[in-house]
Amino acid sequence: MHLARIGEPGAERPVVVGSDHYLDLSGLTDDIDGSFLENGLAAARAASEAGELPRLERGDARIGAPIARPSSIICIGMNYAAHAAESGSAPPDDLVVFLKTANTLAGPYDATPLPPGSTKTDWEVELGVVIGRRASYLASPDEARAHVAGYVVVNDLSEREWQLERSGGQWSKGKSFPGFSPVGPHLVTADEVDPGALGIRSRVNGETRQESSTADLIFGVDEIVYRLSQFLVLEPGDLVLTGTPEGVALSGRFPYLAVGDVVEVEIDGLGTQRQEIV
Amino acid sequence: MHLARIGEPGAERPVVVGSDHYLDLSGLTDDIDGSFLENGLAAARAASEAGELPRLERGDARIGAPIARPSSIICIGMNYAAHAAESGSAPPDDLVVFLKTANTLAGPYDATPLPPGSTKTDWEVELGVVIGRRASYLASPDEARAHVAGYVVVNDLSEREWQLERSGGQWSKGKSFPGFSPVGPHLVTADEVDPGALGIRSRVNGETRQESSTADLIFGVDEIVYRLSQFLVLEPGDLVLTGTPEGVALSGRFPYLAVGDVVEVEIDGLGTQRQEIV
Repeated sequence: MHLARIGEPGAERPVVVGSDHYLDLSGLTDDIDGSFLENGLAAARAASEAGELPRLERGDARIGAPIARPSSIICIGMNYAAHAAESGSAPPDDLVVFLKTANTLAGPYDATPLPPGSTKTDWEVELGVVIGRRASYLASPDEARAHVAGYVVVNDLSEREWQLERSGGQWSKGKSFPGFSPVGPHLVTADEVDPGALGIRSRVNGETRQESSTADLIFGVDEIVYRLSQFLVLEPGDLVLTGTPEGVALSGRFPYLAVGDVVEVEIDGLGTQRQEIV
Repeated sequence: MHLARIGEPGAERPVVVGSDHYLDLSGLTDDIDGSFLENGLAAARAASEAGELPRLERGDARIGAPIARPSSIICIGMNYAAHAAESGSAPPDDLVVFLKTANTLAGPYDATPLPPGSTKTDWEVELGVVIGRRASYLASPDEARAHVAGYVVVNDLSEREWQLERSGGQWSKGKSFPGFSPVGPHLVTADEVDPGALGIRSRVNGETRQESSTADLIFGVDEIVYRLSQFLVLEPGDLVLTGTPEGVALSGRFPYLAVGDVVEVEIDGLGTQRQEIV
């Protein structure tokens, strides 16, 4: 099942995505939030398959992030060996974890404001894991998958001067500018996704920047969820970003983003985002 | 005005704290959340002064955190010169910022679970700033105070092995265990607090650990709010922790916390917390 949220910011309507139409979920839930992801997916699927959901034309309505604002956005750093190398780091022995403020959530096609004065704004395509059931002190990675509701594409936008040069070493300062977490277009439920070997790529103005596979993740989805649960509580609706592959501007191989640039990030089966830098 | 939230976790009732009683705010607001802090304080004060709020006996009901779960808990690190020194760091030139997950929020007298296997759990008394109005790209520190609703005592509990040794350098891993952000007992509204020179201290099993003044903050409240607003959006209800003074276990001068220990943290005018480690 592909889920989306359609409409203006703050007033999105939850829908199931059909072949050339939407099915309206707003009779079943107000939003694609933690409560719905924990308790409502089966009913939504049943109603969709039974033809009980009102049909909506696709039209040209805005597509929002496919999840409501989460309690937490939790990010794994340096989780592709080649990206760690281009950032000047050794591959980590354990998860490197930082947080973004949840109010960075944006729609997949929303324009991204360049932070005032920024000359080092960078893209990072990432596989996002959306939590469906509370996870705390899981006993093994085998338990992780039962806590995942689905997967999304995320652009983990980063301002490298604030992240690395003005930060005192803590990265969150360069990660939480307004609009810095475009998510979507769709939340694809876990039953339809094998996250182990998905093509993942980004382009700037049509030129390839990142081109990799989630098979190159140092810590895969099950390890990430299991390990996170050892030191924090994952809640339904939380968003976990699994790290970005090589090919970002920080490498020195590409220019940073400027006003007018168009960034596309995509993951096989999950869709493609497109942001203009404004 | 001193505000509190009384009752079991998840079912707290908002109140004004009187001399030996509470005044029930639940007819005016469901919770002490961002919306209330932005728009409801004046009405609450007027109703309180007019004697229109139902009187409640103090009794022995649990006292919860005095604010609803925030969108973000934003922390300033190394913001007292003597604490930076005991942690092995130079005083920072700019804010050092990290985040805790918001689900670490706990009541001021709730027991604190020692993380499984932890031998390096530490206390950190901090002045907490509660945001009352959205702050984004403020023009100067002079604008900051209008965005502050009030002040709270916070214990920024920290597991130093996860924060420093198992972290890859990013501190959030040691900051987000369940119950690691006790807040309160009261939210004291900004009109009643001069945050510039408040006595701030902590004790473990009755022995003094930290004993300082917010006059020693490297970056004061106005600077913090102004500077944060340059790279993230502060929202009503958000909680900003301003850093901790010297006297934590990380210094090597005191043992880390163990089961059965009792931690007290307090700030003049804002009250005293007490947690048993379990």
